[in-house]
Amino acid sequence: MTDSNRLIIFDTTLRDGEQSPGASMTKDEKVRIARQLERLRVDVIEAGFAAASPGDFEAIRAIAAVIKDSVVCSLSRANDRDIARAAEALEKAARKRIHTFIATSPLHMKMKLRMEPEQVLEQAIQAIRCARQYTDDIEFSPEDGSRSEEDFLCRVLEAVIAEGATTINFPDTVGYAVPEVFGATMLRLRERIPNSDKAIWSVHCHNDLGLAVANSLAGVMIGGARQIECTINGLGERAGNTALEEVVMALRTRADYYKFELGIDTTQIVAASKMVSQITGFAVQPNKAVVGANAFAHASGIHQDGMLKARETYEIMRAEDVGWAATKIVLGKLSGRNAFKARLQELGIALESEADVNAAFGRFKELADRKSDIFDEDIMALVSAEDHAHEGEHYRFVSLSQRSETGEMPTAKVVFSMGGVEFSCEGVGDGPVDATVNAIEKEAASGAELVLFSINAISGGTQSQGEVTMRLSRAGRIVNGVGADPDIVVASAKAYIAGLNKLHSTLERVKAQG
Amino acid sequence: MTDSNRLIIFDTTLRDGEQSPGASMTKDEKVRIARQLERLRVDVIEAGFAAASPGDFEAIRAIAAVIKDSVVCSLSRANDRDIARAAEALEKAARKRIHTFIATSPLHMKMKLRMEPEQVLEQAIQAIRCARQYTDDIEFSPEDGSRSEEDFLCRVLEAVIAEGATTINFPDTVGYAVPEVFGATMLRLRERIPNSDKAIWSVHCHNDLGLAVANSLAGVMIGGARQIECTINGLGERAGNTALEEVVMALRTRADYYKFELGIDTTQIVAASKMVSQITGFAVQPNKAVVGANAFAHASGIHQDGMLKARETYEIMRAEDVGWAATKIVLGKLSGRNAFKARLQELGIALESEADVNAAFGRFKELADRKSDIFDEDIMALVSAEDHAHEGEHYRFVSLSQRSETGEMPTAKVVFSMGGVEFSCEGVGDGPVDATVNAIEKEAASGAELVLFSINAISGGTQSQGEVTMRLSRAGRIVNGVGADPDIVVASAKAYIAGLNKLHSTLERVKAQG
Repeated sequence: MTDSNRLIIFDTTLRDGEQSPGASMTKDEKVRIARQLERLRVDVIEAGFAAASPGDFEAIRAIAAVIKDSVVCSLSRANDRDIARAAEALEKAARKRIHTFIATSPLHMKMKLRMEPEQVLEQAIQAIRCARQYTDDIEFSPEDGSRSEEDFLCRVLEAVIAEGATTINFPDTVGYAVPEVFGATMLRLRERIPNSDKAIWSVHCHNDLGLAVANSLAGVMIGGARQIECTINGLGERAGNTALEEVVMALRTRADYYKFELGIDTTQIVAASKMVSQITGFAVQPNKAVVGANAFAHASGIHQDGMLKARETYEIMRAEDVGWAATKIVLGKLSGRNAFKARLQELGIALESEADVNAAFGRFKELADRKSDIFDEDIMALVSAEDHAHEGEHYRFVSLSQRSETGEMPTAKVVFSMGGVEFSCEGVGDGPVDATVNAIEKEAASGAELVLFSINAISGGTQSQGEVTMRLSRAGRIVNGVGADPDIVVASAKAYIAGLNKLHSTLERVKAQG
Repeated sequence: MTDSNRLIIFDTTLRDGEQSPGASMTKDEKVRIARQLERLRVDVIEAGFAAASPGDFEAIRAIAAVIKDSVVCSLSRANDRDIARAAEALEKAARKRIHTFIATSPLHMKMKLRMEPEQVLEQAIQAIRCARQYTDDIEFSPEDGSRSEEDFLCRVLEAVIAEGATTINFPDTVGYAVPEVFGATMLRLRERIPNSDKAIWSVHCHNDLGLAVANSLAGVMIGGARQIECTINGLGERAGNTALEEVVMALRTRADYYKFELGIDTTQIVAASKMVSQITGFAVQPNKAVVGANAFAHASGIHQDGMLKARETYEIMRAEDVGWAATKIVLGKLSGRNAFKARLQELGIALESEADVNAAFGRFKELADRKSDIFDEDIMALVSAEDHAHEGEHYRFVSLSQRSETGEMPTAKVVFSMGGVEFSCEGVGDGPVDATVNAIEKEAASGAELVLFSINAISGGTQSQGEVTMRLSRAGRIVNGVGADPDIVVASAKAYIAGLNKLHSTLERVKAQG
C-alpha cells in the first residue's frame, strides 16, 4: 500500500493534544475544532479516547454526528470493553476508525501491564478481532514501540495485520528519535514483516528535541509511512506532537522533492491555529513557523516598499496560502444581523440554531457598543463565550468595579452568582487582577491554586479585547479558564470564574498513551 | 579540520536574532545577554553588525570589552570600510572574529549588487585580505549560497580559503532546505574544493518549515560541518533561526548517536531563554521544546505520585540539566542587601558598580513592600528596568490612577514627564489600558501606532508582576517597550513610555543578511 503517493493526515489535537496539562476542552469546543479540521480537510480526526471519561465519550459522539468528510477515530486500549465503548461513541459516524494500542516493550509489559509477551500478543490479536465487529478501519499502535524487542514487535505486527488491522502506527512516544535512524527502523520492520504491505504505516512523533517534523518526513521518505499523526500548533504534552502546519507546509512547499499528494486545504491553517490557541489558552510564539505572528514579514506591521520587493526574494510560502487574511477589520457598530451571520459563515462557524445566532448577535451588539472595530478574533471569542454559556454554569459573572492608584492598595468589588445566589465581595491585592481574584475567593473559597496566568490581546493594539487564561489546580486536577473583554480586569474575572466552573464539574479521566 | 569531533556553537541572537521586527535591544541589554552567553559557554558570540548603525557599533565595543572566554564576532559586508569598522568595534576583544559576506547567486549579484561574478569573486578575496590585517579568525558567508551556481560557488570558496578565511558558512537563508539534500550539498562542495579541509565548515539554518534543527544536524553528520549557527529561543526573522537549546540538547541527549563534543554548560539554557524572552518581549510558547513551561511535566504544576514514577519512563532529559530550578521563591521583604547581592551573583547578573547595586536594591525593597514573594524573574525584571533607567530617558513615568466599573467607560489619569516637564492627563478607553494610552497620547502626541500588545506574568499566579510589551510603529520604525509592575495597568503605562523613549532615540540601521 506504500506504492501510493497519497499521504494521510491524521490529526490528534483532540486526543493527544488535549492530554497536555491545562489543554482540556469542553464538548462544544471539541466540536468546533473538529468542524475546522474538516474544513482543513484532514483525512482522519482522532476525536478522543471514549473509555477515558464520560466527557470524552460524549465529545466523540457529538463529533461523529456532525463530521461527514473526515474519518472519525477513537483511541481505545486493547480490551473488549474499551473497544465496545469506542464503537458506541462512533456509532453515528459516516466513516469510523478504531485505534487500539498495547505496550510491547519489556519494561511496560512487566511494570505496567504485568503480562507475559505471549499474553500481550494474544490480547492484541483479540482486540483487532473485537474491533472488526464494528468497522473495517482499524489502527494498531505498539506503545513504546521504539524500545520494544524487534523480533517480538515483528510477531505482534504481523499477527495484527493478519487479523485485519489496516493501519500500523509507530510512535516515538518520548521524542527521542533521530530522523535517519527512525526511518531506517521503520523500513526494516516493513521489510521483515511478510504481510506489511497489507497495512498503511503511520508515524507519530514528539518534538522534545525539535525533530518531530524531520522524523515524520524520514518515516515517510525512508520508512515508507503513508500516514502522519500530528496536531494543530504542535499541541501536546511536554514539547508536543508534530505540528500539522509545519509538516504539511514542508510537504507542500517542497513538493518538488517530496512528491506526495495531500488532501489538505492549507488556507484553513491559520484559522485552525487561532481557534486551538484561543480555546486552550496556549499562546503561539511570534517566531513559530507558519502560524506565528512574525512567520510572514507583512504580519508584523512592516509595509515599506523595500520589504515588498524583498518579500519575493525571502519568502518561500505566500501568507495567503496558509490563510493569513490581508484585511482584518470586518464589522462595526452598524453591522446588521445578516452581515454578522455572513461573517460567521466565512469564518466557518456553524451555530446549532437560529436561537444561538440571535444570542451571539446580541453579544456582538453589546461588544460593538464598547469597541469600535470588531475583528475576526473578536467574533471567534464571542462565539467561544457563547459555547461556555451553554454548559449550565454553577458560577456566573455579574459585574465588577476596580481601581488602582499609585501609592494605594488596588481594590476590586465583584458581583457574581453561585448556584443562582448573587454575592457581592470586595478584595485588595498587589494589582487590580489580584484584588479581583481575592474578592471572588472571599465568597467562593474554592481552594484552587492559580498556577498560570496569561493575557493575549485578541487583535493588535489596546482597543483590542484582552483574552485571559487562568490555569487553576486543585487536588491534582488542572483546568484552564478563559475570559475575553476589552477591559483586561473584567476578562480576568471571567477567566477565573470559567476556571471555577470547570473545577466544579467532576469529570475524571483515564490516562491515555503519550 | 573536520576530523575533529568538537562542535563549535556560534550564537547570533544579538545579530540575526535582533533583526527580527520588534526585537531590537539596547546596548546594556546586549551586554547582559552576551554575559549570559559566555556563562552558557558558547564558543562564538556574534555581537552585531558594526557598520549597520552607531548603536550596533557601540554594543559590539561594549561586549568586546567584557567578554573573555567566548570569541566575539562582528558581521561586515565585503568592503574595506565595513571591515575596518568591525575591527575597530572588536579592538578590545580578547578573541575576535570578523564575519564577512557577499551574495553569490545570479539573482542577488545582478539585482542587488549590480556586479559581474568576476567582480564579486575579486571583492570576496579583497575582503579576506583586508580582514587579515586585523585578525586570523575570519568567517566568510556566500549569501544566498543555496541558490548560487555550484561551479562559481566552488571558485569563490576555494579562493577565500586560499586567502585565509578560516570558517566557511553555508546559509539556508530562506529556510527552504531539506536535511538530506542540504547535507549532501555541503559534502559535495567540500569534496570539490581542493583546500576545503583548511577551513571549518558552518551551517546557518532558518526554521520556516520546522526543519532548522534537522538541517543543522544533517550539515554536521552528512556534510561535515563543525560549526552550528543558532539563537536562543530560535529568535530571528520570520520563523527564526535554529534554536540553540534544541540543537544542543539533541546533540547531548543523543550523544550515543551523534558522538560530538560540545563546550556548552546546558544548565544555563533556561536562564538565557528567560533573559532573551524578557528583553525582547517575545514570549516562549508553553509547548516549546526544552524551554517551554510545559517542556518538562513538573514545570506545569503536576506533583502526583503517579507522574513522579512515570517521569523516569517518559522524560529523556532532566529538567535540572537545562537549568529549570526546583524552587523559585528566593527573597522577601526581610531579605537584606547581602542576600540580594548574593542572589544577583547566582543569577549571573553583574552590575557595573556598587551604586548600581544600591539602586537595584532600593527598587527591590520598594517592590517587596508591595509583593510578598520575590521570584528570580522579578529580580531580572528589576535589573532590566534599572538598565533602561540609564539611558537618559526623554519620557518618564511618575504615577497613575485608573478605575473601571461595569456599565461605565474606563478612565485613567497619568502623570509623566517629557524632557523634564511634568504633565498630568486624563483619558478614557475601551479598557483601563486603552484609557491609559489615550491619556498619555493626549500630551505626548507621538503619532506612534500600537501594533502589538502582550502581557506575561513574570512568575505564576496573580501575585506575580505583569510584564507588558508594547510594539510601537512610526514611519516604518518598530520598537518594543517593556514594563513590569504588580499592577498590569501601571506595567502598561511603563511599557508605552519605554516604547516612546526608544522611538525618541534616532538610531537607524543598515539591513544585514538574513
